[in-house]
Amino acid sequence: MSVYLKDIPLEVALQRIESALSEIGLWKILEAEEIPLDENALGRVLAAPVWAKLSSPHYHASAMDGFAVHAEETHGAQPSTPIILKFGVSALYLDTGDPLPDGFNAVIPIENTEPLEASGELSLKIRNPDSIRIRASVAPWSHIRPLGEDYVATQLVLPEGQVLRPVDLGAIAASGNTAIMVARKPRVAILPTGSELVPLGTNLEPGDIPEFNSLFMSAQVKLMGAEATRFPITEDNFEKIKDRVLAAAKDFDLILLNAGSSAGSEDFSSRVVESLGNLLVHGVAVRPGHPVILGLINPEGQNSVSVEKPVPIIGVPGYPVSAALTVEIFVEPIIARWLGRPVRERTKENAILARKIVSPAGDDDFVRVVVGQVDGKLLAAPLSRGAGVISSLARADGLVILPRGVQGCESGESVQVHLYRTRQEVERTIFCIGSHDMTLDLLAQDLAKRDRRLVSSNVGSQGGLIALNRREAHLAGSHLFDPGTGEFNISYIRQYVPDRSVKLIAFVHREQGLMVPKGNPHGLSGLRDIAEKQVRMVNRQRGSGTRVLFDYNLKKLGLSPDSFLGYDDEEYTHLGVAAAVASGRADTGLGITAAAVALHLDFVPLFSERYDLVIPAEYFEDDLLKPLLEVVSGNEFRKEVSTLPGYDVSEMGKIIAELEAA
Amino acid sequence: MSVYLKDIPLEVALQRIESALSEIGLWKILEAEEIPLDENALGRVLAAPVWAKLSSPHYHASAMDGFAVHAEETHGAQPSTPIILKFGVSALYLDTGDPLPDGFNAVIPIENTEPLEASGELSLKIRNPDSIRIRASVAPWSHIRPLGEDYVATQLVLPEGQVLRPVDLGAIAASGNTAIMVARKPRVAILPTGSELVPLGTNLEPGDIPEFNSLFMSAQVKLMGAEATRFPITEDNFEKIKDRVLAAAKDFDLILLNAGSSAGSEDFSSRVVESLGNLLVHGVAVRPGHPVILGLINPEGQNSVSVEKPVPIIGVPGYPVSAALTVEIFVEPIIARWLGRPVRERTKENAILARKIVSPAGDDDFVRVVVGQVDGKLLAAPLSRGAGVISSLARADGLVILPRGVQGCESGESVQVHLYRTRQEVERTIFCIGSHDMTLDLLAQDLAKRDRRLVSSNVGSQGGLIALNRREAHLAGSHLFDPGTGEFNISYIRQYVPDRSVKLIAFVHREQGLMVPKGNPHGLSGLRDIAEKQVRMVNRQRGSGTRVLFDYNLKKLGLSPDSFLGYDDEEYTHLGVAAAVASGRADTGLGITAAAVALHLDFVPLFSERYDLVIPAEYFEDDLLKPLLEVVSGNEFRKEVSTLPGYDVSEMGKIIAELEAA
Repeated sequence: MSVYLKDIPLEVALQRIESALSEIGLWKILEAEEIPLDENALGRVLAAPVWAKLSSPHYHASAMDGFAVHAEETHGAQPSTPIILKFGVSALYLDTGDPLPDGFNAVIPIENTEPLEASGELSLKIRNPDSIRIRASVAPWSHIRPLGEDYVATQLVLPEGQVLRPVDLGAIAASGNTAIMVARKPRVAILPTGSELVPLGTNLEPGDIPEFNSLFMSAQVKLMGAEATRFPITEDNFEKIKDRVLAAAKDFDLILLNAGSSAGSEDFSSRVVESLGNLLVHGVAVRPGHPVILGLINPEGQNSVSVEKPVPIIGVPGYPVSAALTVEIFVEPIIARWLGRPVRERTKENAILARKIVSPAGDDDFVRVVVGQVDGKLLAAPLSRGAGVISSLARADGLVILPRGVQGCESGESVQVHLYRTRQEVERTIFCIGSHDMTLDLLAQDLAKRDRRLVSSNVGSQGGLIALNRREAHLAGSHLFDPGTGEFNISYIRQYVPDRSVKLIAFVHREQGLMVPKGNPHGLSGLRDIAEKQVRMVNRQRGSGTRVLFDYNLKKLGLSPDSFLGYDDEEYTHLGVAAAVASGRADTGLGITAAAVALHLDFVPLFSERYDLVIPAEYFEDDLLKPLLEVVSGNEFRKEVSTLPGYDVSEMGKIIAELEAA
Repeated sequence: MSVYLKDIPLEVALQRIESALSEIGLWKILEAEEIPLDENALGRVLAAPVWAKLSSPHYHASAMDGFAVHAEETHGAQPSTPIILKFGVSALYLDTGDPLPDGFNAVIPIENTEPLEASGELSLKIRNPDSIRIRASVAPWSHIRPLGEDYVATQLVLPEGQVLRPVDLGAIAASGNTAIMVARKPRVAILPTGSELVPLGTNLEPGDIPEFNSLFMSAQVKLMGAEATRFPITEDNFEKIKDRVLAAAKDFDLILLNAGSSAGSEDFSSRVVESLGNLLVHGVAVRPGHPVILGLINPEGQNSVSVEKPVPIIGVPGYPVSAALTVEIFVEPIIARWLGRPVRERTKENAILARKIVSPAGDDDFVRVVVGQVDGKLLAAPLSRGAGVISSLARADGLVILPRGVQGCESGESVQVHLYRTRQEVERTIFCIGSHDMTLDLLAQDLAKRDRRLVSSNVGSQGGLIALNRREAHLAGSHLFDPGTGEFNISYIRQYVPDRSVKLIAFVHREQGLMVPKGNPHGLSGLRDIAEKQVRMVNRQRGSGTRVLFDYNLKKLGLSPDSFLGYDDEEYTHLGVAAAVASGRADTGLGITAAAVALHLDFVPLFSERYDLVIPAEYFEDDLLKPLLEVVSGNEFRKEVSTLPGYDVSEMGKIIAELEAA
């Protein structure tokens, strides 16, 4: 068993798939099939060009409700010298779409005619008058849709490889086609494996992992235009996995074997592939995603003599972010080729990196980012890097791909973003940076109803102010207490946002206190207890407002950080601290009430702090931020927040200070 | 019966729908329903925010295959001073995802350890050694995924209004949810009406119109996230239409009544709406699309007392382009509101208009355009304006909307394009302008396989050269014969493309001759016969190469245009001329063999002409055009074209001349 994978570069891996599939004649459309032209053709891919079978229209058709005439008989008609055309001889009534009668060569719309009685009076018999009077001449072929105006028989209607849109269905029908040749949908088997996996909805014990990779993978595959079939969970057992792979190889075009693709003791994927066919790749230098396997399975078993074509298999890593990206990177090009359509690409835009990224030099690094546009600049802020953190993908507005050889990017550098959103969505994004508060989630909810996206990047209060000064955010959330002035935020803004005039808006007051397990088993009543009772704490990261508050009170109490067990153990959010206490990893941590309540912890209130929004004055006139200012100063949102434990909304929306640029 | 509709501005019409639906409580999500979390949730719209029910992970999990340790016991481990940890006491083996055992606080990946036998020798029992030797210390919480790393219980996972993507399904599952509240899919009834309509696939008689609007309309509605039901064709009969509308009103949320929405004698839609409810709008100032109807139907009939809510009905105009745009403009905002998602918008970009547009001042004018990018400039060339020409929508890369009050746009002006394609697709577009030849369709086919789109705008040879000089195309197709030099194209390029160095590449030689009905009933053998026998001809437009050829030979024969019946009757393509002859509108016309063959006409060959491609020299180094140059100089394409009647490919790809900028 090899413990170390040999990672090969991404482009080499992709090239290896292409070569292997080319060799066995599978680097092309799988099969063409004829289907009737109906709504189910939507999204299918043409396997052959569509040529017009009939001309459309297939006859000269009146384009209006009106009268067919001989154009030459209308010459000289003027407002003052009308011409009268005898009905039945020189004028015939036509509805829109009626064929032009033989010998006629123009149509006059009904509203440009005056139907007459035999007496010369205006007639009410619009479709059947005695004659019509006209006061303008018409050119030949006016208001006629000539045969073939839309399609002429034999003309190319749509090229091979077209992914059919609604209007294409109309075009195919208009050109006289009632059936089309499309690429057969590839059949993809998705096989979740792992003894730790349990079906969704199972009551979870520690060590259980709910199986949902197959859920989003099948949705991904479906969106690509293929059919996905989810198999039941297979436990980590070489023979069972092997049997299931073999069974799938008989009925499917592609097998996605999820997890077990690493090199651990229970990672059977590579051995299964080797035992049933050829292992082409084991390990690709992409992050997240490393332990990708690419191989070919002989559906009759390796040693049999068979005319069957080998079936490609991809060993997809188990972490959800790795799994999703592996499907995007490796499955999409195969499905695209099998359907004969171009590989789908994201819109790419250049953006300024709002935070530093460190990246391993050996990998193509796929970094999830949120994206906003501030003062005309596109900004990208990296999200959590963990391969297990699917929220980083769900929240992502795009991907920044740092190629091998690049060891990271500094904040302020220009990077290319593969956008998951349209540029218009990005332009409606309010980009918030700084400290995190749970009420920002609620605010995002309310703004979504007002056509705004609130995207927040959590870098702590101080980091937010610095970004605001660099014009890299629309607003910052801050709760920095100044021990010198006893005031929140103002002195910090003067220091960190010297270049901009800003308004400081009160958002919420919130209680800060000790989160402790139910019943407060260590009987903690203040910070001093933590040190004296030598219980384990968890801290917030340096630069966060909560950390400043903690350190200030430590100093006030004359205590040294060294006397606190776990002082250097940092979390980045209130909920992170709560989770650490809930799990027993720590006995206590400083944080807000809401986080404690969320995880069923007890709470020992110690301080009240103001969480403010810092907004540059110029944005108060900006259409983009108007909905946010309305929500914050309105009653509805205030009411919503006041139901959360530990929040005081009495000052919400109040302008605390207006600070001019230095 | 009012003959004239009262067109109201688009924004007024949209506002009237919104007000009317608001009044009856229908300007919101129709209904929320709970569905299980499975693949069918893809594309559904959340009717309520999703909050995390469980934390993910729900325990501290090992992030790697390796050994759980106490971080403090690893302090001081160095390559030269390893530390040995006793298995079972100070080190426990964990697979990725295993829970961290109580009391342990870090994981060391297996590849950073040396498993040992009791003897101190390296052990093969990787999961169960006597001890492990490490040569580096680890920080607390290294290689551990702490509880709640991804989602902490109670945290916002996804906001209301989210259209679910594959990764969202994963996020919902990860956060412990197995069911979701989504907006019920609106049910849309599509009712085609018209006595002239026949089902697709019917053998067509003149006057028959194949019914396919309901096909693409239902596909449009489906893509919006609603359910569409196509009804059978209803003939033009007031009572029958009324009955069907009433029936649909009982089961559906929205009725699309196709055609009959104009004011012609057989246009019953407005009267049906009036008889069953309220007519809100009849006629909107959009082009194409004018005769749009908006109304509300009482499902119990107008005069009954009912608790049922009225059902909105849209009278959709009959021309396919009008129908498709009406659905885009009026149905999308209603469905978006009923699903609680944002209205879908196209990416908007500024482009330079490649050809003049004339527009009625009173309407919002939706102009279909093809789009390409030349020398960094985005270019938009208008397509056919006819509301019946669905090919103009199928070929369109975007829409230019000329608002009311604008009477058109000059070529060279900047306009905003609502793009149907991604910017990347546009960047891979080779923008060809000039004369039309059928082999360009084949060329487009071959280029599509090489990741290039060939878009051609047919403005005649001369127009193409002028555009090329203005840097508004990548290449021009031209077959301009110079009677003075006996040469093709060269003198015209000197005149019309003075500012650019170009290469003139031979493409095809093609026969030009008279297209005549089968059997050549007038026995035409040359141009002189047309005049002498006074048969009716159809001409090509001024500026086209075929027209130059025609006029040159007329002069050579000493004939005057006046002696030709139909000389001023112009078509813009070879196939257009062929169609005119095939339909009997003309007896003959000058054109190429292929077009005659396509429409089963006979052909009297008269001249051979060279159709060239004119390509600026600088593009020969351009990646964009490389595939085109390869195709044109390769054998495969040459072979394909040579199978077409009337084409000679012996010079294809030959450089005829290299002309320096003046």
